[in-house]
Amino acid sequence: MNIKGFQFSAVEAAIKKPGRLDLALIVSETPAAVAAVYTTNKVQAAPVLLDRERTENGTCRAIVVNSGNANACTGPVGMDDARETTRLVAEGLGVAEEEVLVSSTGVIGVPLPMERMRAGIPPLLQGLGGGTLDDVARAIMTTDTFPKLEVRTGKAGGTGYTIAGIAKGAGMIMPNMATMLAFIVTDAAVDPAWLRTVFAAGVERSFNAITVDGDTSTNDTAIIMANGAAGNPMLSGGSEGAADFVRLLDEVLLTLAKLIVKDGEGATKFVEIAVKGARTDADAKRAAMAVANSCLVKTAFFGQDANWGRIFAAVGYSGAEVEPDRAELFFDDVQMVRNGVFAGGHAEARGTEVLKKKEFSVIVDLHLGDGEATVYTSDLSYDYVKINADYRT
Amino acid sequence: MNIKGFQFSAVEAAIKKPGRLDLALIVSETPAAVAAVYTTNKVQAAPVLLDRERTENGTCRAIVVNSGNANACTGPVGMDDARETTRLVAEGLGVAEEEVLVSSTGVIGVPLPMERMRAGIPPLLQGLGGGTLDDVARAIMTTDTFPKLEVRTGKAGGTGYTIAGIAKGAGMIMPNMATMLAFIVTDAAVDPAWLRTVFAAGVERSFNAITVDGDTSTNDTAIIMANGAAGNPMLSGGSEGAADFVRLLDEVLLTLAKLIVKDGEGATKFVEIAVKGARTDADAKRAAMAVANSCLVKTAFFGQDANWGRIFAAVGYSGAEVEPDRAELFFDDVQMVRNGVFAGGHAEARGTEVLKKKEFSVIVDLHLGDGEATVYTSDLSYDYVKINADYRT
Repeated sequence: MNIKGFQFSAVEAAIKKPGRLDLALIVSETPAAVAAVYTTNKVQAAPVLLDRERTENGTCRAIVVNSGNANACTGPVGMDDARETTRLVAEGLGVAEEEVLVSSTGVIGVPLPMERMRAGIPPLLQGLGGGTLDDVARAIMTTDTFPKLEVRTGKAGGTGYTIAGIAKGAGMIMPNMATMLAFIVTDAAVDPAWLRTVFAAGVERSFNAITVDGDTSTNDTAIIMANGAAGNPMLSGGSEGAADFVRLLDEVLLTLAKLIVKDGEGATKFVEIAVKGARTDADAKRAAMAVANSCLVKTAFFGQDANWGRIFAAVGYSGAEVEPDRAELFFDDVQMVRNGVFAGGHAEARGTEVLKKKEFSVIVDLHLGDGEATVYTSDLSYDYVKINADYRT
Repeated sequence: MNIKGFQFSAVEAAIKKPGRLDLALIVSETPAAVAAVYTTNKVQAAPVLLDRERTENGTCRAIVVNSGNANACTGPVGMDDARETTRLVAEGLGVAEEEVLVSSTGVIGVPLPMERMRAGIPPLLQGLGGGTLDDVARAIMTTDTFPKLEVRTGKAGGTGYTIAGIAKGAGMIMPNMATMLAFIVTDAAVDPAWLRTVFAAGVERSFNAITVDGDTSTNDTAIIMANGAAGNPMLSGGSEGAADFVRLLDEVLLTLAKLIVKDGEGATKFVEIAVKGARTDADAKRAAMAVANSCLVKTAFFGQDANWGRIFAAVGYSGAEVEPDRAELFFDDVQMVRNGVFAGGHAEARGTEVLKKKEFSVIVDLHLGDGEATVYTSDLSYDYVKINADYRT
């Protein structure tokens, strides 16, 4: 996969176990409009703190990413290491240090192995032009079981453009491993201010609508670069093709987000939790997230148990406004609850059939207003416990 | 165990499987001062809604409790059933219906089996005087593996009195099973308004400071009855012996709360999470609860992995104010983090030794103020998933 005006590279720098790509680079041949969304965790990794400053500029040239070490909880040394990493890449590219971003994912609390980073950067730079976005998607994996890449093509003012995105790992997957990372590149010309708006909105509906274990990492980062190499008339609010661009971008983001859930640790189910009829959209998201994060609900999904009482209880403690005797609950199209009580009939048997599927939906209608939200989650299985209980090795 | 002026009874009413006590009664021979704390879940079981009204009166005569069915999400029928249960008990005792409280724990969404309740209440009434609080402690168990009872004796104005408490089941333990219940009885004479204050404060530091899975049930209830049969001068704020009474009551509450955690589903560890140096006590509790409810932290406890990064990350997303480079973290007396970074030395090996213990403490010092809070939790094990994934049967 290649996108006009972008170059990619990925190498083995021995940060992870031998034989695995762990250092990658995305470069735009010209300054690209950039927008980003970062973790809301108050404990933030050095690369997040650094990128947060640098994406304020609105343009950037490159993103260097390592896996195997999150450079989180590493103090002033961690910030020095993040800066040095970007400086070495900037010097190699002949661009300003402030135009280079850095992301890290992996072990928390252990300094970046800078000797390996320093040794890896020259071959990384040499590889530019020969690598693909697929290589980068592989290099950012930690415990992901497959690389996650999604592409859409569109037209603006008669000119074709491409949007391609990659992502890795939901939540804090492995013992001491942190980070969801997502990088989107497009050759479309996009107004930087408008890009920030539509990207933030898209992330809210995709990466901010998934949960595997409810643990917000110290490194979560989603960045989009738009370099205009396609040559289309600049996209911005209301311009020709703007709505299409937003739709295609949203598709890329949502597809990547869903792939992350499907590759969640120990996941055997992919579940869409849709809450509607809430007083507000925020209330709907609160309720949906409480359901998606409930250990009891998630173990019931794993056990294929149509246990609507747990879902109802989670909605009840979510903080959302609820009038229990108005609420309805469905598993796919099977109504389990009507006016707050069990719907009766064959609901139990039919609901259980739904839960046996690998993918299904839970729909809660609160009948209080127009607020709605959809989130995506996995179940909580023996393997989740196994993966996360194992000693760090 | 008996307490002056109280009578107890417990019978098999066939609500649970045969051979298990499932219907119990606590009666005060005279009107007792009563105080209660209920679930904050917006989906509340019928008995909670009913008791909430009735404990407003400030006195009560009896509590009837069934296990095996939570009478939750049962709509108007559930409220009728709760009322009828208390009416039948009130008629048998010759007291007003409004003086009888009812609690239920068990399956959600299934109507109370009223035929069995009606058949069980006459023998329950007949058993009064012959039963003990221990019988009641056994009758309210669902998946608890042992009954939970704690007693203290004190003196006020030279007169001896007893405080005895029983409790059951942390969180929403079994598939479709709900409820933490706790009942405290004392023969001390206590001013009702003051009782409400000290009981609410005690519950905040005990039952509201424990978490097994973060799921707040629809039925959580803690009730205290004080009937004055000991004949002591009335206890109230500032009276002789008041401070002692609060201390003894707190000991009963905290001991019961800890027993609930130790009997938590699948628990192999008992962990005290103490946060100090927070900006406020509320901030400290937020941070401690985030750590105690993190699936990643709890699986690390199960895996005996001294994974302080996960704890640090949970504090970071808790909503509490945090300045990462000031924070310290200890496992018992082993310092793992100093100024926000790994303390180095032998911390890793020594921390791992602490995690191998069955009971240990996590201490986080945020160095921002005087706020502090302690919560108690268990680990997240294979057995938790097994217990909660199994089909309802």
